[in-house]
Parts: sequence; structure tokens; C-alpha cells
Amino acid sequence: MSIKRALLSVSDKSGLAEFAKGLADLGVELLSSGGTAKFLQSNDIAVIEVSDYTGFPECFDGRVKTLHPRIHGGLLQRRDLPEHEKQAKKHDIPPIDLVVVNLYPFEETIAKPGVELEEAIENIDIGGPSMLRSAAKNYSAVTVITDPADYDSVLAEIKENDGDTKLSTRERLAWKVFQRTADYDAAIARYLNNEQECAKTFNLSLPLYSELRYGDNPHQATSLYGNFGDYFEKLHGKDLSYTNILDIESAAAIALEFRRPTVAILKHTNPCGVGCADEDLREAWEKAFETDRQAPFGGVIVTNRPMTLALAKVIGEIFTDVIIAPEYEADARAHLQKKKNLRLIEMLPGVEEALKQPTIRSAPGGIMVMDSDYKALGLDGIEDKVVTQRPPTKDEIEAMRFAWRVVKHVKSNAIVFASSDRTLGIGAGQMSRVDSCRIAVWKAKEAGLSLQGSAVGSDAMFPFADGLIAAAEAGATSAIQPGGSMRDQEVIDAANERKMAMVFTKVRHFKH
Amino acid sequence: MSIKRALLSVSDKSGLAEFAKGLADLGVELLSSGGTAKFLQSNDIAVIEVSDYTGFPECFDGRVKTLHPRIHGGLLQRRDLPEHEKQAKKHDIPPIDLVVVNLYPFEETIAKPGVELEEAIENIDIGGPSMLRSAAKNYSAVTVITDPADYDSVLAEIKENDGDTKLSTRERLAWKVFQRTADYDAAIARYLNNEQECAKTFNLSLPLYSELRYGDNPHQATSLYGNFGDYFEKLHGKDLSYTNILDIESAAAIALEFRRPTVAILKHTNPCGVGCADEDLREAWEKAFETDRQAPFGGVIVTNRPMTLALAKVIGEIFTDVIIAPEYEADARAHLQKKKNLRLIEMLPGVEEALKQPTIRSAPGGIMVMDSDYKALGLDGIEDKVVTQRPPTKDEIEAMRFAWRVVKHVKSNAIVFASSDRTLGIGAGQMSRVDSCRIAVWKAKEAGLSLQGSAVGSDAMFPFADGLIAAAEAGATSAIQPGGSMRDQEVIDAANERKMAMVFTKVRHFKH
Repeated sequence: MSIKRALLSVSDKSGLAEFAKGLADLGVELLSSGGTAKFLQSNDIAVIEVSDYTGFPECFDGRVKTLHPRIHGGLLQRRDLPEHEKQAKKHDIPPIDLVVVNLYPFEETIAKPGVELEEAIENIDIGGPSMLRSAAKNYSAVTVITDPADYDSVLAEIKENDGDTKLSTRERLAWKVFQRTADYDAAIARYLNNEQECAKTFNLSLPLYSELRYGDNPHQATSLYGNFGDYFEKLHGKDLSYTNILDIESAAAIALEFRRPTVAILKHTNPCGVGCADEDLREAWEKAFETDRQAPFGGVIVTNRPMTLALAKVIGEIFTDVIIAPEYEADARAHLQKKKNLRLIEMLPGVEEALKQPTIRSAPGGIMVMDSDYKALGLDGIEDKVVTQRPPTKDEIEAMRFAWRVVKHVKSNAIVFASSDRTLGIGAGQMSRVDSCRIAVWKAKEAGLSLQGSAVGSDAMFPFADGLIAAAEAGATSAIQPGGSMRDQEVIDAANERKMAMVFTKVRHFKH
Repeated sequence: MSIKRALLSVSDKSGLAEFAKGLADLGVELLSSGGTAKFLQSNDIAVIEVSDYTGFPECFDGRVKTLHPRIHGGLLQRRDLPEHEKQAKKHDIPPIDLVVVNLYPFEETIAKPGVELEEAIENIDIGGPSMLRSAAKNYSAVTVITDPADYDSVLAEIKENDGDTKLSTRERLAWKVFQRTADYDAAIARYLNNEQECAKTFNLSLPLYSELRYGDNPHQATSLYGNFGDYFEKLHGKDLSYTNILDIESAAAIALEFRRPTVAILKHTNPCGVGCADEDLREAWEKAFETDRQAPFGGVIVTNRPMTLALAKVIGEIFTDVIIAPEYEADARAHLQKKKNLRLIEMLPGVEEALKQPTIRSAPGGIMVMDSDYKALGLDGIEDKVVTQRPPTKDEIEAMRFAWRVVKHVKSNAIVFASSDRTLGIGAGQMSRVDSCRIAVWKAKEAGLSLQGSAVGSDAMFPFADGLIAAAEAGATSAIQPGGSMRDQEVIDAANERKMAMVFTKVRHFKH
């Protein structure tokens, strides 16, 4: 077998002339129509017009060109069945062995601002998908190309392989076709869906990025789909796991909450310490690490500044699973790469875009798609959101802002004690808010950190006064929380009795 | 305008005879081919064979039937352009106004065990999607049906609406077509993908099930896609939120771990108490509730048995957000429905299927798809997995099994103290395992529950002996954990010194 006849019909002409010339040089007969035929002829490549080939004129403004038995019979006839061969001869339907089609640019059309429905509809390709699908169904004999990126390798293979492609290549190309037609029709469905008021559908088609090392646990195989590599680059270390990816996402989100040089330490997707400094990252690290010197074992460290050798040396002493930074100074990277089991991740520019994308999570029988909870909200004009008799001092305001920025990244129920540049105690993931508060107090005590004059941040309202009272008794003099409990007045009264300053952000930051 | 000519070609014949009869009674001319034509003729409905209509014989085993300009020109010609009308007359291509097509059952074919590639390929429909897409593109004039569920309403509308459908109906039907063809081709792409070794893609297309009340927080709009309603039915109460759905999924998973009558209480997707009883659900409830009498405020209660009035009365006294049961006795439901803010959810038969589906979670630039961690693993033959000098007693084995079944549903790091039929203390979501252990001990103490003779379960290995020692000092006499730490021997030594029995499951159950 060898390729004798090819049909070319494309909207994207890039690379087509060279490819078609290559086929013609091999003696392949070329069929084409409309703009593609003109383009090839203007490049001195001989083509047979489809309308001459079918004997049927183009009509209805080109809506019906290739939808003809002589085209589709040529694509669909089986080469391994004598009966098909007989019918092909009888009805004069010669085989077509190669198809190059890309589709009317529907997606690009609807992406234009202000495009009208009629223009969108006219850009729904009918003949193209039909040819692609006929050829792909019959991939045992027919080569089908819908992506110009495949021209070079297919032409080279035809030359090397006695004038035909390999079956494995044709199968891969057929798979690409159904991928493409599925995406194309999904885009059309989405568009029509937005045009009307009726039921909506969620469509997703993502390429495999990598098989992960494992999931939550080694017995759970896990794959990562999409373009993770556009946002994070692994410079060094073992394959990433599901938990690594969750941690990397959480870590980037925390680091980007802060403008000052910041270091955060995470474990099981929760921050266990966050520190800021004016210049030296080591100072920020020390503040973060002092919050909890035990939990970081096997954890994740993130900074929002280029990794220096000085910081690399101090954090290199601890057993760490993943380090994340927007950049690594060469000597810092060389130092850290000595550790085989440590993963070094670079946060690439534009990572904020990834964090703004909706959160997707499976639900029974499907998925939930939720707006991202990007950036801590409710901090604008917090001076005007004070609900207590005593207004906060400048220092207290800074401490409250810090606590609020961290607490939003802690699993609910979350309580964070902070000063203006560091965490002092973190209470995470409890079923009762007062328990989170007690844990945070206890963690600070264990770390030898004083909570006198600290701010306490709560990711959701204190439903009762007990949590706030526990914080006050531990030394907090200011509190930041959404408010909104039926018992807000009791909580405010408790704060006033203890001369605390308290802010209601009116925004909740649960994280599950 | 009215519908004069219809083309019918279906693999699913349900409801077709009635619909076609209805059209014929309205004077619509029917075109059909192959099995559909025979079916209609056997129902005494007159049809014109497509091959008679096109003048072109069916060939290549039916691979080319409707791919003909007289069919597609009939579908695609615009009725609003005089030039199209002229061409239609000139080439004798009368308009086709209605199309009923459903596709070769590709998805059903590949779902059969042991199906061969050739059979799968033969079931890729080419003519069907082409007709559907032509008709859908031209929905301004053409009605297209791919779902038999639409027969009745379309026929009724044609009768009520002077022989034609409404434009809004045709647009909705066109949208359904592109949904269907996108899904169909995605299924083909998935199949071909599994057949080969090259790059893989994740495709998902799910209908909107409902807009949720909100997400993690009120400022996060959230939608639920899929068929949640096949697994859970809301009998009563406000709209569900994102957190409700997460809770419902976790709650069902916990309840289904147990065969005995069981009640579990959850908060923020973590269990805060689980109890079993031999008969009376109230007894199971009491055991669950005693573990933590504070956290359940605003939480979720689940049982694996029909809800009785007796249980409804005691849990009705507590402020609860969601109650889940496989069934509600009528008086129990009536009692609980008195509460406006309480949501009552029925777990439907087959819910286990939903829990076995892969876990999907967004990652930077994409998603992760992970095998479900369904059912607690590592419990088979645990008598043979003892690593300590002292083997566990029968009671201790039962307690370890219980602890293990619960700890797998607690966010990591997780520690659970249990006896054979109840939780005694739960430590959830901590960045350090020893902290989770201390929290569990402290919670048990607060609840007034003795840990003497209890089993401690740990979702992952104790990395050091400290966590195990804390558990032993609190009264635990047996421990169940995966093992696998570099310091396993230290942990085993610590257990032996304290005369504990310990099992290594070799399976980890992290949950993030």
C-alpha cells in the first residue's frame, strides 16, 4: 500500500505549501476546494477541484462541497474487503488515502468582541468534521491530519516507509481528530448555551501533564492534567505527589498575600508559621520557624523573594519535602540540589492567574466549580469597621491585617495569633472554634512565644464569646473576624469588658 | 413556514412509531433508511428510502448512506436567501425541515466486556453526527431531535404552533445536538487513547445539576454539575452549599464503613463522633454524641439505617445543618421537617458507586484525578500483622478495627481513640502527629471519657515514638497504624515497654 490520493481543505494555511509540495513530489494526486485550492495553485502546485471530482457544483455559499459519496466513499471504503473494492469500482469511487483538514475557526470567531450570532453560526464547520471523522474511523487505511504540527513528521514517515504511514501513527492521528472534534463541538455547545437561558453544562478537556508519584496515598494512582508547567517549574528532585501539588498551590497563595519579604512553612496544606522581614529573608524565616519548630519536619517552605544562599543554608539544615521560590540564586540552588529527596520548585511569573482560576472539586456523581477565594478580603478601611469602644492602635491594626491574611489560608475552623510581622500561634482544622483557639494558645505557649498584645484572627464569626475570651485571657488585645453571629453583641460585650479592640470584616474566609 | 419533510434514522427505536405516526398524520413526508425504514414500514407508516431519494445506492456495508448533497443540501440550505432557494430548485434539492437521529451505540459497545477493536470502530457513527450537525447549524429553519425524550413536547408544539416549532425550541435542540456530538467524540477519543501509549487527555462534560447556595464562603459563587440526584435526594430544607455537599459525601462514606447500625456526627467534613449499636439507633447516637457535645452545633448527622421517630426526637433537640439517612420513617420525617433550617437528605441505593468514582481536584492550571480511597484497607487478617510481643485481645482487635475505619475519614494528621463500638477522642487536621494525639487525648478528657484499654488509630505512621507514648500514657493498650517509619523499631520498642499490642496495616489513609 502507498498513498496515492490526498484531500486538502484547511483554514490555517501555515506550512501547507511545503507539505503539499512534498506529497506532489511523491506523485500523490491532490484534491482540494475553495481557498485551499487557490492557495495551492498560487504556489504552483497542481490540484483537482472537488467540484470537478464529484461532478456536483459547490452550492449554498459553500455549505455543501465535500458532503458527497465520492468523497466519503473514498474515505470510508475498507481496503481489506473484496466486496468494498468491487463496489468502489462499480460506482467509480477511488480511495482517498490522506486527508488534511482543519476547521473553520469557530473558537476564534466567538472570541472576537461583539461577534454576531449569524457570523458565529456561519463559522460552524460541517464538511470539515465529517471528512475528519470519516478518515479517522477508517484509520486502518487512511492518514488524517488536523494539526499542522504533524506535517513534517508525517511527510518524513511517508518517505521513509515506502510511501505510507505506520498504523500506530494513523491511530494516534485518528485519536487527535476525535479530540479535536469533541473540543470543537463542546465549544459550539457552550456558545449556544450562553445564548440561551436553559440548562448549562460544564465542559473540560485537558491534556495529561504528568502521572503523579501517587495520590493522598500510594494505593491511589493520580494524574495531573492541564498546564501546571506554565506556573511552576520543578528544578530538582523526585516526582511530585498529589499532596505536593496541593501544598504548592497553598504555599504560593500564602506567599503572594504579602508584599514584604516573606517566608511561610506549610504542612498538610496548612501554614504552621509565617514571617515577614524588611530585608533579610533569614529574619523572615526565623519568625516563621519559631511559631512551630516541630511541624515543619517533611514540610513545605515558600518565599516570595529570590532564594539566597544565606537562607538556603539555614533551611537546608531541616528535613524539607518541597521548597518554592520565584527564583534561586545560583549558589543557593547548587547548595540545595545536594539533597536528593528535596524538591525545588520555581514559581513562574503569572502564577497569580492560576490562583484566580475556579476551584474544582468532585462531588457525588459529578463536580463542583467554585469561584476562587483569591486574596484576603475585608481589609480595606478596617479603621472604620471597629465594633468595640476602644479603637485599635496602629500596631494592632498591622497585627490584625497580618492575622487575617494568614487565617484565610488555614483549614477551618481556623484561629491565628499574630503580631505585625509574624504568626505566634495557629489553630487549624477543628470541628469547634473554641478548640482551634485553645490549640493556637497552646502552640504559642509550647513555642515559648508571648501572646501579650497580639491580634487574634478568626476565619469565621465567633459563634459564642468563649473563643474570644480564651484569646483575651491568653493576651490578645485585638481581634479580627467577620462578625454575623446571632450572639455578636455578647462577643462585643466580652471584648469591651476586656478593653479589646475588635474589627468585623463582614467577609468570611472558610477553607475546606 | 411549516414542517413538510422529515428524515428519521435512529438506533434507539423507543417512542419512534408514535412520533412518526404523529408527523405522518400532519402530512409530513418521511425519509428513512435501513433498520429505521423497516421498523416504520412494519408499523404501517409510509416512508421514502434514502437511497431512492438520493438516487445513490447504499454501499460499503452502510458506511455511506446519507452523506449526499441532496440530504445535506436539504438540511443546510437557508430559507431566507433567494439565491439558496434558486440553487435548491436548480439542483432539485428540496428542504428537509426536521431530523430525528440518534447515534450508533458507541459508548454501550465499548462498555461490553471483551469487545474487539473492530467492533468498536464499526460503531463509530459517521452519517449520524453529520446530519445532526448540519441540521443543528441550520436551526433557524430546521428542527433536530437526538433525544427520544423530546418527541412528545416537539410533536405537541408542532400541533399547537401551526405546523412548526418555535425558534427557541430549535435553538435548545441544536444545543443538545452539539452537547451530544461533543460527548460522543470525547468517548471515542478516550477509547482510542486507551488503545495506545501516547499522550492522554481528560475529558469531562457534565450538565448543571444546580447552582449552589454558595461556596466555601458567600462571595464564592458555586455550581454543581453531574447527577448528584441519582445518589442523594433532598427531602426538605434550604438550598445546599458547597460545604454541605462535601459534608454529605464524607458522611455517606463514614456511614457505609459500618455494617452495624451506626450514627456519625460531622463538622467541617471531619467526624467528631461515631457510634455503633446492636439495634437501637439512639444508643449509637448517644455514643457518637458523647465524644464531643459541643462541635456538633450546626453540623451534619448521618446514619446507615432508616431514621426512626425515636432518633429524630433526640437529634431534633440539637441545632443541626444536615441530616442524612437511607430512609425516613414517615413520623420521623414529619417531626424533623418542622425545622425550617434543617436539610433532610436521603441516601439512595447505589450511593456506593458515587463514592468509588475518582476524586477530582483543581491544581494550578488544571486538575488532578485520583483513584478514590474507598473503604478502609489493611484490616484483612490483622491478627497476622501484629508487630509487638503481646498479641491483641479480641476486644482490642475490635477496637483497632473501629479506630481504623474512622481515622481514614479524618483530615490528616489524624488520630482516633476508640473502643469496639465508639469513638472516644478524635484529633484532626494537625501539622504534627503528636499534636493530633494530644488533641484527641484532651478531647476525650473534656468529654469525661476514659481512654483506659482503648485502641489508638493513626492514619499514617508514627514518625517518632512520642505520639505513641502520649497515647499509651493516656490509657491506650493497643495501636493500629501503617508503619513504615525509619524509626519503626523505636516505636515498637516503646509499645513493648508499655505492654501494648500494635498492628501495622501497611496501608496509609491520608486525607487532605
